[in-house]
Amino acid sequence: MTVNVSRHAEGSCLVKFGDTHVLCTASLDTGVPPWLRNQGKGWVTAEYGMLPRATHTRTAREAAKGKQTGRTQEIQRLIGRSLRAVTDLVVLGERQIVLDCDVLQADGGTRTAAISGAWVALHQCVARLVDAGTIRTLPLPAQVAAVSCGLLDGVALLDLDYAEDSTAGTDANFVMTSSGGLVEVQGTAEAEPFTEEQLLRLLRLARLGTDQIFAEQRRVLGL
Amino acid sequence: MTVNVSRHAEGSCLVKFGDTHVLCTASLDTGVPPWLRNQGKGWVTAEYGMLPRATHTRTAREAAKGKQTGRTQEIQRLIGRSLRAVTDLVVLGERQIVLDCDVLQADGGTRTAAISGAWVALHQCVARLVDAGTIRTLPLPAQVAAVSCGLLDGVALLDLDYAEDSTAGTDANFVMTSSGGLVEVQGTAEAEPFTEEQLLRLLRLARLGTDQIFAEQRRVLGL
Amino acid sequence: MTVNVSRHAEGSCLVKFGDTHVLCTASLDTGVPPWLRNQGKGWVTAEYGMLPRATHTRTAREAAKGKQTGRTQEIQRLIGRSLRAVTDLVVLGERQIVLDCDVLQADGGTRTAAISGAWVALHQCVARLVDAGTIRTLPLPAQVAAVSCGLLDGVALLDLDYAEDSTAGTDANFVMTSSGGLVEVQGTAEAEPFTEEQLLRLLRLARLGTDQIFAEQRRVLGL
Amino acid sequence: MTVNVSRHAEGSCLVKFGDTHVLCTASLDTGVPPWLRNQGKGWVTAEYGMLPRATHTRTAREAAKGKQTGRTQEIQRLIGRSLRAVTDLVVLGERQIVLDCDVLQADGGTRTAAISGAWVALHQCVARLVDAGTIRTLPLPAQVAAVSCGLLDGVALLDLDYAEDSTAGTDANFVMTSSGGLVEVQGTAEAEPFTEEQLLRLLRLARLGTDQIFAEQRRVLGL
Amino acid sequence: MTVNVSRHAEGSCLVKFGDTHVLCTASLDTGVPPWLRNQGKGWVTAEYGMLPRATHTRTAREAAKGKQTGRTQEIQRLIGRSLRAVTDLVVLGERQIVLDCDVLQADGGTRTAAISGAWVALHQCVARLVDAGTIRTLPLPAQVAAVSCGLLDGVALLDLDYAEDSTAGTDANFVMTSSGGLVEVQGTAEAEPFTEEQLLRLLRLARLGTDQIFAEQRRVLGL
Amino acid sequence: MTVNVSRHAEGSCLVKFGDTHVLCTASLDTGVPPWLRNQGKGWVTAEYGMLPRATHTRTAREAAKGKQTGRTQEIQRLIGRSLRAVTDLVVLGERQIVLDCDVLQADGGTRTAAISGAWVALHQCVARLVDAGTIRTLPLPAQVAAVSCGLLDGVALLDLDYAEDSTAGTDANFVMTSSGGLVEVQGTAEAEPFTEEQLLRLLRLARLGTDQIFAEQRRVLGL
Repeated sequence: MTVNVSRHAEGSCLVKFGDTHVLCTASLDTGVPPWLRNQGKGWVTAEYGMLPRATHTRTAREAAKGKQTGRTQEIQRLIGRSLRAVTDLVVLGERQIVLDCDVLQADGGTRTAAISGAWVALHQCVARLVDAGTIRTLPLPAQVAAVSCGLLDGVALLDLDYAEDSTAGTDANFVMTSSGGLVEVQGTAEAEPFTEEQLLRLLRLARLGTDQIFAEQRRVLGL
Repeated sequence: MTVNVSRHAEGSCLVKFGDTHVLCTASLDTGVPPWLRNQGKGWVTAEYGMLPRATHTRTAREAAKGKQTGRTQEIQRLIGRSLRAVTDLVVLGERQIVLDCDVLQADGGTRTAAISGAWVALHQCVARLVDAGTIRTLPLPAQVAAVSCGLLDGVALLDLDYAEDSTAGTDANFVMTSSGGLVEVQGTAEAEPFTEEQLLRLLRLARLGTDQIFAEQRRVLGL
Repeated sequence: MTVNVSRHAEGSCLVKFGDTHVLCTASLDTGVPPWLRNQGKGWVTAEYGMLPRATHTRTAREAAKGKQTGRTQEIQRLIGRSLRAVTDLVVLGERQIVLDCDVLQADGGTRTAAISGAWVALHQCVARLVDAGTIRTLPLPAQVAAVSCGLLDGVALLDLDYAEDSTAGTDANFVMTSSGGLVEVQGTAEAEPFTEEQLLRLLRLARLGTDQIFAEQRRVLGL
Repeated sequence: MTVNVSRHAEGSCLVKFGDTHVLCTASLDTGVPPWLRNQGKGWVTAEYGMLPRATHTRTAREAAKGKQTGRTQEIQRLIGRSLRAVTDLVVLGERQIVLDCDVLQADGGTRTAAISGAWVALHQCVARLVDAGTIRTLPLPAQVAAVSCGLLDGVALLDLDYAEDSTAGTDANFVMTSSGGLVEVQGTAEAEPFTEEQLLRLLRLARLGTDQIFAEQRRVLGL
Repeated sequence: MTVNVSRHAEGSCLVKFGDTHVLCTASLDTGVPPWLRNQGKGWVTAEYGMLPRATHTRTAREAAKGKQTGRTQEIQRLIGRSLRAVTDLVVLGERQIVLDCDVLQADGGTRTAAISGAWVALHQCVARLVDAGTIRTLPLPAQVAAVSCGLLDGVALLDLDYAEDSTAGTDANFVMTSSGGLVEVQGTAEAEPFTEEQLLRLLRLARLGTDQIFAEQRRVLGL
Repeated sequence: MTVNVSRHAEGSCLVKFGDTHVLCTASLDTGVPPWLRNQGKGWVTAEYGMLPRATHTRTAREAAKGKQTGRTQEIQRLIGRSLRAVTDLVVLGERQIVLDCDVLQADGGTRTAAISGAWVALHQCVARLVDAGTIRTLPLPAQVAAVSCGLLDGVALLDLDYAEDSTAGTDANFVMTSSGGLVEVQGTAEAEPFTEEQLLRLLRLARLGTDQIFAEQRRVLGL
């Protein structure tokens, strides 16, 4: 992870997990969405995109097609939910932070890299608010990170690249907090169903993976 | 569940789980999507919709707004994936079956009701193909069903209605097969993270719930 | 016709005219469209939709295509106009009622079934406003109902099903009030033009048809 | 009416009915829509548009808004239907003619002016096919024309301008053929319903109006 | 050029440059765009369209396709910029003028005809504001006009028609003011690059062309 | 400029001109657009995008809004035209190359940086085709590069940053070839018109600027 990669954003982090490169920026917005007005609470939301040639063969540009795919919308909702789960929206106050996660190069695990990097950008953005005296305390009670893992011929593997991911029988994503909680568990059988025991094995592997990411997040932020 | 509720469809099932009513129809299409042509395999896909006044307050009509929400796209992808996990696409041959799941009335758990009912409509549709001699054997090695459950003040509950769902700390959906496998596990913390032990408790509860649905599916189909 | 088929809506009616089934709900909206503000008048509008497999072969979902067809827009404008013709918008006051008419199964005459059922849902919705003391008197001076009819080999027939409708030389819809007035007359020659005398014959037939519907509307509402 | 106003089109007619000016062009297309292929029949279709400042106050441009209004789609379907009612599609053969009707200036009755002018442009286009020997005989067994009329304080009036139209209690459009037939009858009560007798009075008035247009159509085409 | 061709618009001009016919109207809007509010300045903007059969073969209608092409957007931005360059927006005050330029028939040079005609419509619109005493002085310090020119086999030609334009090696548009200034210079090599000397030759030719248009603008406005 | 920044693309170049960073990738497509089929010629086209927080304040994501702005479309048309002007499409043969130019960070001059970098990516892509023996000779007879310049208080300046660009009276872009030709000249007066002499001064400055870029292009490609 590298921070301060954007000159303009209130927080930014370039995540490189293998050949997956995601640029995450945090933008501070002074208002909140209409349905949240006058409730003394803030909001954290995310948008996700992928450059057309981030992938092995070129993917059509969503802006040119005129709409975001279901996959894009599903991912950006997941990123937003994951970050809100570790944000104290009351402490944040009536302001919104938008996390833009743009995949420059993809090789599996783009959504989990995005979540892990977006937390760093979000931290920079809210730390700046604390430094400026705008809010009293850091509204981030815990770190959040995510990993993808899967079953390849029945063997549980962490952080699959694209080639592994395509052939994996089961694909799972775990979003976890540094305080030991689970924010999101998604396990999907691509071809044949998986067992409960396999789910537990993936869960243990994911815990090991997110612990490494928490350490890296603290390192780049100097915590 | 009630079957044969549509005069035109090749398979149909009206699911009423509490105040959640979903109409599922199966439509046989003679071709497959372009990217699957000439591979000797079929496809199963799903579309999901909700009538504007299925909800407590009226929801804007997606056709009028000119696009489907991210939630709709996420759900219809889930339904399609769940059904494909129990369908032998090679036995099905080069034809596509579209499952339309339309929510007439909603009170929580619409996506899980849709999956459970869509399997019944799909079964009717492929059984008809077997009866007509178009395909040799039933391409459905197992049943699939789904339940939603959640943690309400730390207590695991099955099949939450809308009021419970809104206040639940964690919301989970499990898609399971009658042969004991897991097809999809989705657990989401709404406010504060959940623990691994809570995840396992929800899993046990879901198994009990889907077993009941498998029995109901067999009953309406006379299996 | 069956009323109270929706748990959430302020008024609801399921119309079954032969194999044509339309679910009509009335939703009360506290505001009026921007161009009508501060004029002391209300508004009644309608939206129309058709489930993909309401038809003999599956019709593409409008929400998925990203726009409503011209036919859909034409029909929902007709429904709205027909209901406004029998509503006293001043008595209704500054509130809007949205009628959603969704075709669950189609076999000809969906727009006329929608108008006839929507009036029942509208009646329930405004009666509730009167009961609550929100408005003084019922703003519905008359009933409104619609029938489709046509010329099949020169013979005037009422309420054509899909097969008859497809082969009819002329297709007509009449929207009439219980006080003997005409709200809308639409006659269309599909292949060869029709004569004035034939138009009059269709008109007489339509009067007989709407009289039956007025009786049914009064019956389900207990008027 | 003035013909040959477009240098490029296969047929063209500028209609000026009072302050309503509509430019109608006919374009010959060598193919037919996919659903009509290999049936030995042709197709006639229409598109309708209005320049933004054709109206008293500027109307938003449909191309800029990204979609056609329901009104536009309703009108262009009406124009297409009206012309097909007097076209022998078998004689026309497997080719399509597109009529573009663009309102340069509006003062009521744009759809009826469009139909009346489009027939002239269509006639020029098919006459050219006959002249070129592409088709044997003229596939236009009759002329078609349309008029708008309405009830103003109970009095039947022909060809209402915008001011009259806005205050009219009932607004009607009649599409008629030169052989005495009716192609389309549309009568709409804006506020209070109309009677059957009033409908008949409007019908007689419309007949007088279309007879005048038929004469004008023959004059500009030199028939 | 012919003025006062529109009954409704605050200014209008029909430009016929060869077989290119463009109808330009000016519409006065009482508000300005949101980002310009409360700054004591006005705005001038333009929209451009082309009738489907303005061209040799029919072009698809942008309103039907649901979006404007890049070419349309590029042209309407150019027209707006060109007019603003000769408008004193402070004198105009907090009001917006929209210029609609619709091509009735095209044979090359539609954007330059549009700019030249739009200035005339704009002049009529602001003169009317002066006459009404709404603004003190005419906010048009100079005239603006545009010409297209190009290199055909290395020879500089003014005002290319469509046939010449298609084969021209270089295509250029110049927007110039009557006070000798340049507002916009656009030179594009279609196939092989052009030289600086050729650019200068085109510039001289353009000056001659715009001088003629300035004279015509003054003539139709009686200046 | 840095090359080979993308693992997947057939050519790639990251351009950093001051604080403007643009990632350019070239993707080889085996087919050509439908209108160019069977003519023995290839095609070069471009798409342009900007990350939401590339700018000082966040810009709405085009994919989320559902359409590309006019500015985006204008720029990507310019990039495509510029590259085609130095590509021998016959030598390229029936294949298409798509250049994606995505702005990671913006500070003025993004379109000119995109053109200059896209040529490098294009060169890598076609060199690969030559190396593979797919085409005989390099279809790039010259280099192409672009610079932005402008008049700030009457003084001609090269490569304006965002702050300078916003206050510049005139903004110009020049696309030039290494063989001394002009491909595109765009000069726009923002507020008051410019003179012919100023245009010439900008032209001389642009020649100096592009010469530097040509040297840099040769350096990174090792030519």
